[in-house]
Amino acid sequence: MITRAELQQLRSLRDKRHREGLGLFAVEGERIVAELLEAGYPFEAIYATPAWRGKRTREVAEEEMARASHFPTPSSVLAVGRIRREALAPGEIERGLTLALDGVQDPGNVGTILRIADWFGIDRVILSPGCADRHAPKVIQASMGSFARVRAIEADLGAALAGARVPVIGCALEGRDVRALAGVADAVVVVGSEGRGLSEAVRRRLAYAVTIPRRGAAESLNAAVAAGIVCDNLRRGAPG
Amino acid sequence: MITRAELQQLRSLRDKRHREGLGLFAVEGERIVAELLEAGYPFEAIYATPAWRGKRTREVAEEEMARASHFPTPSSVLAVGRIRREALAPGEIERGLTLALDGVQDPGNVGTILRIADWFGIDRVILSPGCADRHAPKVIQASMGSFARVRAIEADLGAALAGARVPVIGCALEGRDVRALAGVADAVVVVGSEGRGLSEAVRRRLAYAVTIPRRGAAESLNAAVAAGIVCDNLRRGAPG
Repeated sequence: MITRAELQQLRSLRDKRHREGLGLFAVEGERIVAELLEAGYPFEAIYATPAWRGKRTREVAEEEMARASHFPTPSSVLAVGRIRREALAPGEIERGLTLALDGVQDPGNVGTILRIADWFGIDRVILSPGCADRHAPKVIQASMGSFARVRAIEADLGAALAGARVPVIGCALEGRDVRALAGVADAVVVVGSEGRGLSEAVRRRLAYAVTIPRRGAAESLNAAVAAGIVCDNLRRGAPG
Repeated sequence: MITRAELQQLRSLRDKRHREGLGLFAVEGERIVAELLEAGYPFEAIYATPAWRGKRTREVAEEEMARASHFPTPSSVLAVGRIRREALAPGEIERGLTLALDGVQDPGNVGTILRIADWFGIDRVILSPGCADRHAPKVIQASMGSFARVRAIEADLGAALAGARVPVIGCALEGRDVRALAGVADAVVVVGSEGRGLSEAVRRRLAYAVTIPRRGAAESLNAAVAAGIVCDNLRRGAPG
């Protein structure tokens, strides 16, 4: 059994304001919950109907799940996690590769970029306050479990990048060929919003900008696609 | 004025079955319609409220647009185009770069891949019957106007690739490093579905497979991200 107040609380977690107020987030769906459990994600509670084969902390009836769910067709499982905000350690960005997202608003793109960072073994992702909320259901869905594995930090980029000794490299429509990233081992690479590009606070911190050479007529690339191409280039060995 | 039958027809175009039956598709939204008009797309009809500043063929009241629209919050413009299906010309795939999509079901991915093909000047895109419908509203939205510029052909890939003299290269989780694509000038590169990879009919036609080297723990990359990385590698000069 699940109380009416509990149901209401679960439903409320679709809104960022309520997530922040309660310090909790919810994730629904057999595949994504299974992936996060496999990655060892420490959920606070796992509500599941008898159809769910995995771990649970609370059994609920299908009708209850239908009322708790954010979806018109609910899945058999809804897991609740505690929002944990981590801060950059002093000097942390001086080592390894950091991907910084500057106002990437689309939640699908933010989740896809976490998955890209996970694939390429990027050391950390920094999200500016203008990015989609990392705990939004669509972000977690699109991350395909990488949400549990990638070190992600919310931070003001102007402050986070101030005094960085590693190069801060921006992705823009004009700049050096993205192949210049080959062999770069310690750096911060900033991907901006599709609509507005990089913010002024970030532009002031750039060592240089890189661009993905265009051959055709499209005005821009999707932010996650650009991030993928950037990471692939970062992971090439230095040109021989 | 717009008749009730006309309204009903416009609304029906959200469904593939009705689009096929009528040979028409609809696209809504100021930005995407403006981009397609700018690209010279020959619409059959453009329904617009007084708020729309661009070209129109039919003025409609806001209440009418609200009833024609697929969206809860309608925009000021809804354009209708005729579905044109093109076929591969004999020997067409023997020249230049062809990107083939093998069962890419997500409409956002298909649209994003059209945009990628446009950015990199890929000569044509072939979509297998299992792909998202190219005339679905989400595909056209995600293409950001590239829908009007990229030559796209629906075709059975087994048949289309039979007898190809250019190399047919598949993207897979195992294969040569994707950098092997540098300098390839005439080829068909096939991107499969995220869930099922390449179909058996395609695997039989492959000259070889390429893969994007993984450094971390994610199980896979998003299909559009993989396509972007593949195109970036294709567009590099041959290694010096």
